[in-house]
Amino acid sequence: MKRAVITGAGGFIGRHVLSPLSARGFEVVALSRSERALSEGTEWRAVDLLDAEATDRVFAQVQATHLLHLAWDTKPGEYWEAPENLDWVAASLRLLRSFRDHGGRRAVVAGTCAEYDWTEDCCDERTPLRPASLYGKSKNALRELFAAYARSSALSAAWGRVFFTYGPGERAERIVAAVARALDQETPIQCSHGLQVRDFLYVGDVAGAFASLLDGDAEGEFDIGSGRGIALRDLLLRLEERAGRSGIVRFGDAAEDRGPMKIVADPDRLRSELGWTPLTSLDEGLDRTLAWWRERGGAPEPQ
Amino acid sequence: MKRAVITGAGGFIGRHVLSPLSARGFEVVALSRSERALSEGTEWRAVDLLDAEATDRVFAQVQATHLLHLAWDTKPGEYWEAPENLDWVAASLRLLRSFRDHGGRRAVVAGTCAEYDWTEDCCDERTPLRPASLYGKSKNALRELFAAYARSSALSAAWGRVFFTYGPGERAERIVAAVARALDQETPIQCSHGLQVRDFLYVGDVAGAFASLLDGDAEGEFDIGSGRGIALRDLLLRLEERAGRSGIVRFGDAAEDRGPMKIVADPDRLRSELGWTPLTSLDEGLDRTLAWWRERGGAPEPQ
Repeated sequence: MKRAVITGAGGFIGRHVLSPLSARGFEVVALSRSERALSEGTEWRAVDLLDAEATDRVFAQVQATHLLHLAWDTKPGEYWEAPENLDWVAASLRLLRSFRDHGGRRAVVAGTCAEYDWTEDCCDERTPLRPASLYGKSKNALRELFAAYARSSALSAAWGRVFFTYGPGERAERIVAAVARALDQETPIQCSHGLQVRDFLYVGDVAGAFASLLDGDAEGEFDIGSGRGIALRDLLLRLEERAGRSGIVRFGDAAEDRGPMKIVADPDRLRSELGWTPLTSLDEGLDRTLAWWRERGGAPEPQ
Repeated sequence: MKRAVITGAGGFIGRHVLSPLSARGFEVVALSRSERALSEGTEWRAVDLLDAEATDRVFAQVQATHLLHLAWDTKPGEYWEAPENLDWVAASLRLLRSFRDHGGRRAVVAGTCAEYDWTEDCCDERTPLRPASLYGKSKNALRELFAAYARSSALSAAWGRVFFTYGPGERAERIVAAVARALDQETPIQCSHGLQVRDFLYVGDVAGAFASLLDGDAEGEFDIGSGRGIALRDLLLRLEERAGRSGIVRFGDAAEDRGPMKIVADPDRLRSELGWTPLTSLDEGLDRTLAWWRERGGAPEPQ
């Protein structure tokens, strides 16, 4: 029997990974800060992962074979240099230990493209892992410790680096969500110049990649992205077009994004070793994003 | 007022750092797993640093301005790949956060020469930080996070890499202590070939370097060693000679040490920026080590 614990299960990627895991035959235990019932047929448990003892109790009870660790504190605008990044490194190390000590066999942990050196356009296998932010350094340190611990404790381990994700459930402050809301409410919104090229992937496809990773036995590092770049400007104008609006999105007024002009993933390992491929076109993904905000009347979720 | 918390204060280096810190005008709060009174005039507190809440309570009470973090789990023979290394990374991150949150201004943390790439003789500023062991990787990851956190939280920070330390208080299983005991008891002891060249520094001088680091404001990484290598064989034969014995130490029978043939520190930063220099000659250090074991009748300390 495959019994998987998902941390951050109520989060942006987490909520989209539950169905694909169930479809793959996993018995899923979804962990979240607050008890939610976002999907039927899933066992939810409320736990504060920053509480070591509470975390250990959960793993002792659940006796999971698989772990997908997505939880992290990523408050928009603040998380790049927030000291809480250290707390999440500590919490992640503890929960990995607890999972393994209670019989866990396979763990997949979410990384970030911010582990890469962003002083030049990136990222592929030649790009050094040389993060600049405290967030990137924290994920990078966790990656190294996770790999070393997995080797020394015979834990099957994979690391999935998330690039730029959009879709239903994104936090309201993040760019695609913010523009989708603005379009829904017909309120003009100020963006950066938008010329930076990014690798945007629909959240359902990011979740699909994690489900595929968790269900396999491939080890090491995987970049999760489409492999195709799009200028942020083009993405947002396309979103405006799909919403049937114009003149809402305004470029050049807000501060620029972090990172170099181009950040595009190389998902070659995902494709060749797991047969993974994105299933959702950009237009479909944007339409679903708009529909989700429309249904909610633009109301952000409580965090 | 300078008020310093010392973790691992009952440990090998810790107990030797208390006097030099008092001499420098520090009010010292010594933390240890068990309550000991190894030195008068020092406030001791028993705390399990793996317990997050207990640790935070101590820092809330103590309101320290300075932190010297020496504590780690280094059980001889086991610590290289022990999963507890992860617990100590987590505990270290938490205590750094707690120290800073309660007003801490200057922190010095103990690193290790095992952070360096040991595939070739080492170590100087050209040697890559590419550890092979879980212990080395754990210290290395902590070093990176500590530096990043210090930068983002305006904490004054220095990292002191310990090389090979010997002297009174060393754990009985470690090589110099084991040979000193064997000499005291006139029991033959099997060693490796002993041809590996290492940088051995008397524990009082290691402690002096840490006291000097804590009392200054120099930031970044410092290698703590004599700068001179000695073949382990020569060190142990010298120890035998100082003990007035012969034929007790036998080479070539036990498994080899980890690491390359030569591991010697480059203490240039310590010398030039802090004016530090070792005060104890090899013979003095060996004599004190022998005397310490003789006084105890060769009995190891409870751990």
